[in-house]
Amino acid sequence: MIKEVLSQPPYYAVIITSKLKPMSDMTVAKYLALADSMYQLAQQQPGFLGMDYARDPNLGITVSYWRSVDDIEKWQKHPEHVDIKAIGRQEFYDTYDIRICLVEREYGSP
Amino acid sequence: MIKEVLSQPPYYAVIITSKLKPMSDMTVAKYLALADSMYQLAQQQPGFLGMDYARDPNLGITVSYWRSVDDIEKWQKHPEHVDIKAIGRQEFYDTYDIRICLVEREYGSP
Repeated sequence: MIKEVLSQPPYYAVIITSKLKPMSDMTVAKYLALADSMYQLAQQQPGFLGMDYARDPNLGITVSYWRSVDDIEKWQKHPEHVDIKAIGRQEFYDTYDIRICLVEREYGSP
Repeated sequence: MIKEVLSQPPYYAVIITSKLKPMSDMTVAKYLALADSMYQLAQQQPGFLGMDYARDPNLGITVSYWRSVDDIEKWQKHPEHVDIKAIGRQEFYDTYDIRICLVEREYGSP
């Protein structure tokens, strides 16, 4: 978790799983820079609660956490976010799936 | 996605984010073997729809997809799964968070 989720459920999670194109080291650096700009932008948005991501050589998983569907919809339409997504689709993602989920329960390690 | 999700929403997702202990190459191999046994076992369970995972050096994300909360609860109590989780907690996970989520909407790349 990059930023602690401060909310108790119910809140929302957006799960993005992406099959990544093969990347050179230089492309990986560019990809990480883009992911970082997206994170910087996301955390300024109303309703943003946190974000996790991990990347295997060809599969990336990003989960972001939000207060409501309304906050998610505003974020999806944010002009800079729209631009970043277009770059991602063009340069890094082979295919991707997005799932909008209501987090009903949450528990952690003791 | 290791196995295609055949269902249309609504269905359930279990998001597990884990902070991993530092691993040697040998430990990574052991970790991957354990993850694979868990996947083999999960896909034999009723209501299992699919699983995704990705791992950064110190953060792992596993998302499994299920037909219902009831199927998830049965899986959580499966004796072999309970054993595998105990090994995971002891050897690989520093801390972890589990979120049970209702997938309300899903869309993918064109």
